[in-house]
Amino acid sequence: MKAMYNLEQILNGNRVALAKAITLIESKKDSDRLHAQRLMEEILPYTNKSIRIGISGSPGVGKSTFIEALGLHLINKGKKIAVLAVDPSSPITGGSIMGDKTRMEKLSRHPKVFIRPSPSSGTLGGVAQKSRETILLCESSGHDIIFVETVGVGQNEIEVSNMVDFFLVLMLPNAGDELQGIKKGIIELADALLINKSDGESIPIAQRTQAQYESAIKLLKPHGSWTQKTMTCSALEKKNIEPAWEMIETFEELSKKTGTFYNKRAKQNKEWMWALIRELMDLKLKTHPEIKQLWPKIENEVVRGEKTPQNAALEIMKQFS
Amino acid sequence: MKAMYNLEQILNGNRVALAKAITLIESKKDSDRLHAQRLMEEILPYTNKSIRIGISGSPGVGKSTFIEALGLHLINKGKKIAVLAVDPSSPITGGSIMGDKTRMEKLSRHPKVFIRPSPSSGTLGGVAQKSRETILLCESSGHDIIFVETVGVGQNEIEVSNMVDFFLVLMLPNAGDELQGIKKGIIELADALLINKSDGESIPIAQRTQAQYESAIKLLKPHGSWTQKTMTCSALEKKNIEPAWEMIETFEELSKKTGTFYNKRAKQNKEWMWALIRELMDLKLKTHPEIKQLWPKIENEVVRGEKTPQNAALEIMKQFS
Repeated sequence: MKAMYNLEQILNGNRVALAKAITLIESKKDSDRLHAQRLMEEILPYTNKSIRIGISGSPGVGKSTFIEALGLHLINKGKKIAVLAVDPSSPITGGSIMGDKTRMEKLSRHPKVFIRPSPSSGTLGGVAQKSRETILLCESSGHDIIFVETVGVGQNEIEVSNMVDFFLVLMLPNAGDELQGIKKGIIELADALLINKSDGESIPIAQRTQAQYESAIKLLKPHGSWTQKTMTCSALEKKNIEPAWEMIETFEELSKKTGTFYNKRAKQNKEWMWALIRELMDLKLKTHPEIKQLWPKIENEVVRGEKTPQNAALEIMKQFS
Repeated sequence: MKAMYNLEQILNGNRVALAKAITLIESKKDSDRLHAQRLMEEILPYTNKSIRIGISGSPGVGKSTFIEALGLHLINKGKKIAVLAVDPSSPITGGSIMGDKTRMEKLSRHPKVFIRPSPSSGTLGGVAQKSRETILLCESSGHDIIFVETVGVGQNEIEVSNMVDFFLVLMLPNAGDELQGIKKGIIELADALLINKSDGESIPIAQRTQAQYESAIKLLKPHGSWTQKTMTCSALEKKNIEPAWEMIETFEELSKKTGTFYNKRAKQNKEWMWALIRELMDLKLKTHPEIKQLWPKIENEVVRGEKTPQNAALEIMKQFS
């Protein structure tokens, strides 16, 4: 089997080789699948060395500006970074509301930065699956810090929070009760909430917003030994970018010392495996000649209350051999 | 097939017949399974007429006292009620920390009340599955209001919140930052938070606690069209029991008018069906002669980072035919 990738170049950090490898694992062609599997096996010993950081927030909150500011700060410290996007809109519209390189102008031109837009879905495991493999590929090619950017829409934050070590949520300063616009529920996933655009006249509002989230967070379930943090910042004025990074470093240090860092990754991998198995089983079930005909009808009977879920499940499984 | 239950008596509200029917569906004997399935089919047309209310809270918060106070109030209004328990401790200890009839003295002696402790797990779908079927049985025998009581431990609240129409969480009055003892995360599931034991000297603390939760709830994801509510009460002094019930009635009325009530039940049923199918598929997989040997080893390799989850999943599925 002739390799469809150049392992040595990937490991050496060659960006063209890396981009080609990602295209291979994103490929939907059956003939590419075995190559992709082999590639993932070969890079595995070179992975697990980065810190993976999820960045989420509503459109307009300043994710790109923040990643550019933090990214440049990290490059100055000698780090190599990768920015990946998980974008729910791309498979639907064909376009992409993220991963837009022109929005991270300085960062995208830097030789120590690798930026990759969202993969399209439709393959096993969907967007999340490909993103997980892309993370591993970026790690193997020597990137120290991997940002996974996602927009606060639908199920994506949950998926992204399950593939990163640290999940950062950007928020807008908001006065009093005007918090209706934000994606509620997301603060439950966040390891830290950053109130961005805390500059000029917005500073007092940002501080009030922070205090509000701070007291809300106290009532939420802590993430293992880590208590969620809040902070204000201004990506535009590069204010509090360094303290934000120090917070993440503290998290990494602390959770590596207690072992929760490694436990979380092991747990994520295990869950990822079973999720894939479940998906493959589902596929088997839903493409089974008899069941394919049967399940939509039975599901409808359950929805209409004409059949108990228990009896419906047993009826479907009776066909499965 | 001779029926192992008396359908007519169940539908007429005979409590002995109902208790026997529940024992049948809880049975782990293979020979009982077909009877149980048939029973569930037969009662189905008589279900769906009650409102299902989950009641959760830490031990000591006063769940039994609250259910007794609210239950007696409802009986006085002519309602027939059932109290079921989902108790995570029973399969482990053999005993039960809930469903203790003596703790609801007046209620348990009333002819319009049916109380059933937690089923033991170990069967398909576990405790949750049996509880769902018990709910349907209680509905078919004419109970208007079904309380599903659970203690705030582990995964149970999530399971219970997925089988009821309204999820009520009882809380203790707590001053300032002393909220460490409560099960965090549970407020995200609650349709309403009731600060119980708001009596005597605790009233001002209860009110402060309520205000705290009220502002926290504003930051959480609303449950469809319903915005979570907070309230203080004293089950002991029977204070705010009626307003609490009126809140649930408002919820029922509102969500029936908008249709979210029925949509939620249809969705719960659909999810229940697929969860059962998934469980049966899992069982098939894990009892498969080759896979049974293989998966623990492969799972360990994934946990240790020696194999990618993707490749592990494909390897396991290759055995499955």
